[in-house]
Amino acid sequence: MKIDLLVTNCTLLPLPGTQEIIARGFVAITGGDITAIGPMDQCPPVGTGTMLDGQGQLVLPGLVNGHCHAPMILFRGLADDLALSSWLQDHIFPAEARLVNPAMVYPCTKLAAAEMLLAGITCVADGYFFEADVAQACAEVGLRCVAAQGIIDFPAPGVADPRDNIAVATTFLDQWQGRDPLIKPALFAHSPYTCSPRTLTRAKELARQYRTSLFIHVAETKGEIEQISTPLAASPIRHLDALGLLDRETVCVHCVWADEEDLDLLARREAGVIICPQSHLKLASGRAPLPSMLARNIRVGLGTDGAASNNSLDLFREMDLAAKMYKILPPDPVAVPAQRILDLALRGTAEVIGLHPGSGMLAPGSPADLILLDTNRPNLQPWYSSDLLVYSGCAAAVRSVIVDGRLVVHERKLLTIDLAETMTQVNRLASRTS
Amino acid sequence: MKIDLLVTNCTLLPLPGTQEIIARGFVAITGGDITAIGPMDQCPPVGTGTMLDGQGQLVLPGLVNGHCHAPMILFRGLADDLALSSWLQDHIFPAEARLVNPAMVYPCTKLAAAEMLLAGITCVADGYFFEADVAQACAEVGLRCVAAQGIIDFPAPGVADPRDNIAVATTFLDQWQGRDPLIKPALFAHSPYTCSPRTLTRAKELARQYRTSLFIHVAETKGEIEQISTPLAASPIRHLDALGLLDRETVCVHCVWADEEDLDLLARREAGVIICPQSHLKLASGRAPLPSMLARNIRVGLGTDGAASNNSLDLFREMDLAAKMYKILPPDPVAVPAQRILDLALRGTAEVIGLHPGSGMLAPGSPADLILLDTNRPNLQPWYSSDLLVYSGCAAAVRSVIVDGRLVVHERKLLTIDLAETMTQVNRLASRTS
Repeated sequence: MKIDLLVTNCTLLPLPGTQEIIARGFVAITGGDITAIGPMDQCPPVGTGTMLDGQGQLVLPGLVNGHCHAPMILFRGLADDLALSSWLQDHIFPAEARLVNPAMVYPCTKLAAAEMLLAGITCVADGYFFEADVAQACAEVGLRCVAAQGIIDFPAPGVADPRDNIAVATTFLDQWQGRDPLIKPALFAHSPYTCSPRTLTRAKELARQYRTSLFIHVAETKGEIEQISTPLAASPIRHLDALGLLDRETVCVHCVWADEEDLDLLARREAGVIICPQSHLKLASGRAPLPSMLARNIRVGLGTDGAASNNSLDLFREMDLAAKMYKILPPDPVAVPAQRILDLALRGTAEVIGLHPGSGMLAPGSPADLILLDTNRPNLQPWYSSDLLVYSGCAAAVRSVIVDGRLVVHERKLLTIDLAETMTQVNRLASRTS
Repeated sequence: MKIDLLVTNCTLLPLPGTQEIIARGFVAITGGDITAIGPMDQCPPVGTGTMLDGQGQLVLPGLVNGHCHAPMILFRGLADDLALSSWLQDHIFPAEARLVNPAMVYPCTKLAAAEMLLAGITCVADGYFFEADVAQACAEVGLRCVAAQGIIDFPAPGVADPRDNIAVATTFLDQWQGRDPLIKPALFAHSPYTCSPRTLTRAKELARQYRTSLFIHVAETKGEIEQISTPLAASPIRHLDALGLLDRETVCVHCVWADEEDLDLLARREAGVIICPQSHLKLASGRAPLPSMLARNIRVGLGTDGAASNNSLDLFREMDLAAKMYKILPPDPVAVPAQRILDLALRGTAEVIGLHPGSGMLAPGSPADLILLDTNRPNLQPWYSSDLLVYSGCAAAVRSVIVDGRLVVHERKLLTIDLAETMTQVNRLASRTS
């Protein structure tokens, strides 16, 4: 078997079905896949492939960011410490109306993709407008992306007349389906409070037709509950279900205000859920009922949300917070164990957003999306268990990143684009926000 | 005026009394003090001093860690996801009884000090046993330390007979008072539930005699409230007050379960408070009433607590969490604005733990404890305000660190000790924990 990239001398967490850490191991990659993995004494010859010395480094599957609006990195810190409704309507929507166009989406996504890769995120599920430019930017930077074109019943960037929203989305799907191995096109209906039942139904029909995922913000704030509830569908999640939207290919983002009946429904329909802990706190939305979701075996994953409401595209921080925030009110130190969170950030999220079934683990046949962490640093000493990655892991430990078999970050440097130029472009745009 | 170290071309946040960021500025340091600061066009000649180019970097006062048990870095991750009582009594106390001695305290503190400096922390208030070895290690690594010798009514590391606890503490104060400009010796009474009223009173007398601070864990858990409350002193904080302990030189650490009357008392006595948000969540202790503390102008600061209950000695993470965690339950996006948190992490904490009055700010006469942040990285773009430091700041951005006028971290490398050797020593100790 020809090897394209061979990672040697690295530390490997227990492989599926085993208990032992491999202190000196290898990962062999051919094309975009992991083809072999094991201890160094079984390492095959590299042949004409490239060798990457993983000495002193821990190899992990890349982290998967289940929800983002990459271009919104431009609005990071533009308006902090506000409630979601005022943040959106007084600040973000006006700034978006004025500034969002392909010339903004493309460089801003490149910057966001750079931030994510450097933080060990190898795949993002993104939802925005001009999503073709998001897809283009991610492909160029080398970040895997489930790119979901936004659908909303208001005039939106790139969709002046909302009656065209489904048509624009269809064009996007046609354009990007099968075009790039890194990009999976999908759909993102903004929310039940900004999309009519007809729009939601049509969006889901379109997603089914193209066999892709439909993402939707739902039950994010208490206000939304009051706004959407009707005698027939007493919650936004039941509203979606009444419209036939809930299935394995629908991803309900946020679900902060999902009640017991909603949770039962999400479990029964096997719908996916992505929670964004930092964003939920920052926008004062609340705390999604993660322990109840896990108790019901709901398919759930983690996301950062956009940088404007977080304000970091950093899944290490999400993991740490998710593992801690449920331990109080009421007090329960084992409400969500660290190991469960690590599993969510790797396999769980990948599964929810519809990646290849082998994603989020290290095994032959899995996509070669992986990261090398420098554990030889003070904040990652000593090592008793992989809980350490949840409670002390950090973006700064990420030394190399491989996506789809391609080395995109090496020795903490992004290899794919001119990052300084991208930062300059984004800062030029930022100077026009006020 | 002779200059020893001159930082040039750096970005400076608005100086006290001004509104404007200085895009190209300088900081002049003589001995351990800042002697001049301003825009580059007023920069004095460096003479025979050392020049440090701050191009593309933001200079901030060093972060101040208001509470730590540095040697406990050995127990980071040894026992996660447990309640405080079980964590302490079933895991930490037994491990401490077996392992804590000067040969453990010294290298472990060096590692903790390294982690803190690399994360932009220039001063820590530490409390542990064998605190002389903590002080020695911090002085060597170059971290400023308010080193507080532990006092407890149980046999403890270095104090086999608890009747000697005050005598051992006195010896420590005698040894370290005025010995090293980086070290201020102080006292740390473990808690009202592990120290008798007589011990607490004697500890406070000793602190007064040596004009230093007395730190004490108090009102950390709900269980403690029930344990300590008596008809005469219905809460641990009122218990301390009844013993005459509360004044400006007493630092009440945690105060998670301070009720309204306690808070009024802390304000009236002008006692200091340190909260440790990450630790409070991780140990399922609860959420300290920070908004109520700020509303009463209680002197409050932030700490990480020991690495075993956090698990990172990283004040950027504490700031981010402290700014977010009060925004929910009940929802209030402006419960604690980011700017208030930044001020706490710089000036507030420094004031509470009794540092020089100029600490935590950049001004002539202030101690030269400062950090240079590389803002030229994706996760710190764009810049709209210094809120960015709270919501997106990270240890990884710290490029250089100066403590007491001495450059101790440069280009992310610790200059003062052999870090690899220290890590090896700590890992050797870690292999003996089980």
